[in-house]
Amino acid sequence: MVKGDKINFSTPSGFPEFLPSEKRLELYLLDNIRRVFESYGFTPIETPAVERLEVLQAKGNQGDNIIYGIDPILPPNLQAQKERAGETGSEARALKFDQTVPLAAYIARHLNELTFPFARYQMDVVFRGERAKDGRFRQFRQCDIDVVARRELSLLYDAQMPAIISEIFEKVNIGDFLIRINNRKVLTGFFQSVGIPENKIKSCISIIDNLEKIGEAKVKQALAAEGINTEYTQKIIDFINIHGSVDQVLDKLTHLAENLPEAQVFNLGVTELATVIAGVRNLGVSENRFCIDLSIARGLDYYTGTVYETTLLGHEALGSICSGGRYEELVGTFLGEKMPGVGISIGLTRLISRLLKAGILNTLSPTPAQVMVVNMQADLMPIYLNVSQNLRRAGINVVTNFEQRPLGKQFQLADKQGIQFCVIIGSEEAAAQRSSLKDLKSGEQVEVTLDNLAGEIKNRLG
Amino acid sequence: MVKGDKINFSTPSGFPEFLPSEKRLELYLLDNIRRVFESYGFTPIETPAVERLEVLQAKGNQGDNIIYGIDPILPPNLQAQKERAGETGSEARALKFDQTVPLAAYIARHLNELTFPFARYQMDVVFRGERAKDGRFRQFRQCDIDVVARRELSLLYDAQMPAIISEIFEKVNIGDFLIRINNRKVLTGFFQSVGIPENKIKSCISIIDNLEKIGEAKVKQALAAEGINTEYTQKIIDFINIHGSVDQVLDKLTHLAENLPEAQVFNLGVTELATVIAGVRNLGVSENRFCIDLSIARGLDYYTGTVYETTLLGHEALGSICSGGRYEELVGTFLGEKMPGVGISIGLTRLISRLLKAGILNTLSPTPAQVMVVNMQADLMPIYLNVSQNLRRAGINVVTNFEQRPLGKQFQLADKQGIQFCVIIGSEEAAAQRSSLKDLKSGEQVEVTLDNLAGEIKNRLG
Repeated sequence: MVKGDKINFSTPSGFPEFLPSEKRLELYLLDNIRRVFESYGFTPIETPAVERLEVLQAKGNQGDNIIYGIDPILPPNLQAQKERAGETGSEARALKFDQTVPLAAYIARHLNELTFPFARYQMDVVFRGERAKDGRFRQFRQCDIDVVARRELSLLYDAQMPAIISEIFEKVNIGDFLIRINNRKVLTGFFQSVGIPENKIKSCISIIDNLEKIGEAKVKQALAAEGINTEYTQKIIDFINIHGSVDQVLDKLTHLAENLPEAQVFNLGVTELATVIAGVRNLGVSENRFCIDLSIARGLDYYTGTVYETTLLGHEALGSICSGGRYEELVGTFLGEKMPGVGISIGLTRLISRLLKAGILNTLSPTPAQVMVVNMQADLMPIYLNVSQNLRRAGINVVTNFEQRPLGKQFQLADKQGIQFCVIIGSEEAAAQRSSLKDLKSGEQVEVTLDNLAGEIKNRLG
Repeated sequence: MVKGDKINFSTPSGFPEFLPSEKRLELYLLDNIRRVFESYGFTPIETPAVERLEVLQAKGNQGDNIIYGIDPILPPNLQAQKERAGETGSEARALKFDQTVPLAAYIARHLNELTFPFARYQMDVVFRGERAKDGRFRQFRQCDIDVVARRELSLLYDAQMPAIISEIFEKVNIGDFLIRINNRKVLTGFFQSVGIPENKIKSCISIIDNLEKIGEAKVKQALAAEGINTEYTQKIIDFINIHGSVDQVLDKLTHLAENLPEAQVFNLGVTELATVIAGVRNLGVSENRFCIDLSIARGLDYYTGTVYETTLLGHEALGSICSGGRYEELVGTFLGEKMPGVGISIGLTRLISRLLKAGILNTLSPTPAQVMVVNMQADLMPIYLNVSQNLRRAGINVVTNFEQRPLGKQFQLADKQGIQFCVIIGSEEAAAQRSSLKDLKSGEQVEVTLDNLAGEIKNRLG
């Protein structure tokens, strides 16, 4: 055996892990996100971490998302065995780099077992062989929802997304945020109508998508570099600078539509946008939580309609904390079917790491235990165990201290772990069927009968 | 782009995935297991799926647990870039095959940030390049708890394990089970005392561990093949055949101890076993849930004291559904420290797959939605959305049907997904602020005012 002190036991670069207080925060967020997803009827799935390489490369985007291949490392004797058995690894396998390609594969694998529209959530970890820097991780958890239909998918599904985003971020209390909504057909249609060549539209969209990051001057330069002339560039800049309330922007777009030639796509986009906004309002999303932002495009090629980004106000540098959109040809890839869908994604690992750094979220206590039953005398242990079990049955998380230490040390140990209450039972208390309950937060100590102990603690926990 | 119909989109062999109804069962089990773990103060951690290969091989057991190495698959242009940057992959990385080695690494990495005794749970997926057969998977989820101390670890932690196992399996209602408890020192000590050579003791333990699987005759043969003479073999067989109530077995062991020469280790084992049993009783575990079984040894080398296996009565062929034990030198590997610990593990993926096959567990409905608000007329959609949101605010999971279909089809769609209730609102109902609530299970349909709808549904859900 290799000596312990010679082994580099640190995590490989880019593969982070949380301390208990951070992992508990992650679980708290996951629980809340899941509760909101499920309240809208989204159902959980989990696809394997490993897929066939050809599946992962089907959309051809392995350039951005560097894929990790996997291969068994066999001891020499088993290597021979493997070769005799003909398992020569010709079927390359690799770790998934997102949840979208696996969703497409999942739907193809289980087409006849699923009910459509299929609304699923997925909160797995994914793997990308990126350079580990700028807070980018090589393994991270994403919380995704998508609704996918076999033919038509109502725009009301698009309207639900901002309601869901809004509910999640209100629930976990991360401060003011703004969901920015746009529609790719509005952009594409506008570019078509003003006469930008069809083959330049995608790159124009990519350029304006960077407006917030690089500023107007650099957008102009980039458009010029793309061969867009000054007249068009000015039209584009004027367009993405349309601001105002949701109704003002919708009015301006409607007015613009009347003056644009061949505006079918643009009109369709405006109608979709208006329908989605009406749905968002009917779902009761606060007016201050959403806006129309015509510069939002989402870099990804596959979006065809509604797109979303979410900005944490006052912390714009964090970038979008929840994004997504509507697509037509993404999840039908393996079936050769058009399957319209709409989805959003929260990059949870990165979000937590950045919100912690920015002081927007705090970690939880390092243990879920709320009570420590302290150890006063070894011979009372049967009582400590019994009291602990009664508290657990009442839904309270309890640590029984088995170690014999001075009382002060036991309080310290509880406090260090964020355990709020200590239950103290000496021989007198035991005989009288009561206990002292010490609140380490307030320092207060009260006498409680053992019968009332669970109730008292639950009241105090609130 | 490769044509969809040419891609093999099936999961790679041994990498299973669940349908929504199965995944929901897994989450139900995970939620319950987690609740019990946390009620005893175990705190969550998650280590990365990927560790340095030298870490995973530190315990030298890659023979049984074939490790998957990972390596980035780079497009040719990036391959060159990587080489220029000097990232030549000399630091081999691989997927974890269990949670024990990663726990040891986690403790080494965060020694000064953790509080000891450190009680953690971990429910991650792990990867083993085994031949995918006999219901063995190459990716599966394990639910593990361990308590680890820096010096001494009270035997009461060992006593908590059967209480936790018992609570979990009672909660999820999988029928009668029996936790079989033993102590490796009892076995080792007995073998030493009857005179079995020190270098044969481990293999003797491995052999008797197979008693249930291969039967007494084959155990005898195997012991003979190991060079154990007939006299010893008979003593061993007589020993592991000691049966009876917990107290009877403890009595017999105590009696035996009096007649054994040099029985220090044996005596220590018997004392430990008796202490653990006393703790299990003080924790209120039902007498019919546990026993002492002297043939239980756990194959794994590293156990040094208490060992557990759990048998589902009437389904013995499933093997142990929860196992574990006490160890001394496992998690201190990377620190070169002795760190005593005790832990148990539930191989959840395999367990679910086998319990489903055996009909012991049933899948849940394929959606978490409990209510469908049906679509009677498109112009009432704002009301449907509003009603849906009110139900969600009351904690009910709701799908709003956006598609316009005949009512019967909508009921069918709800029923197919296991949604129990449909809320029906036509223009008359809307005007009167009421709805028809249809229970698809009973077929009953009642009139409810919109104000009372959430309350009525919650009552009926129970």
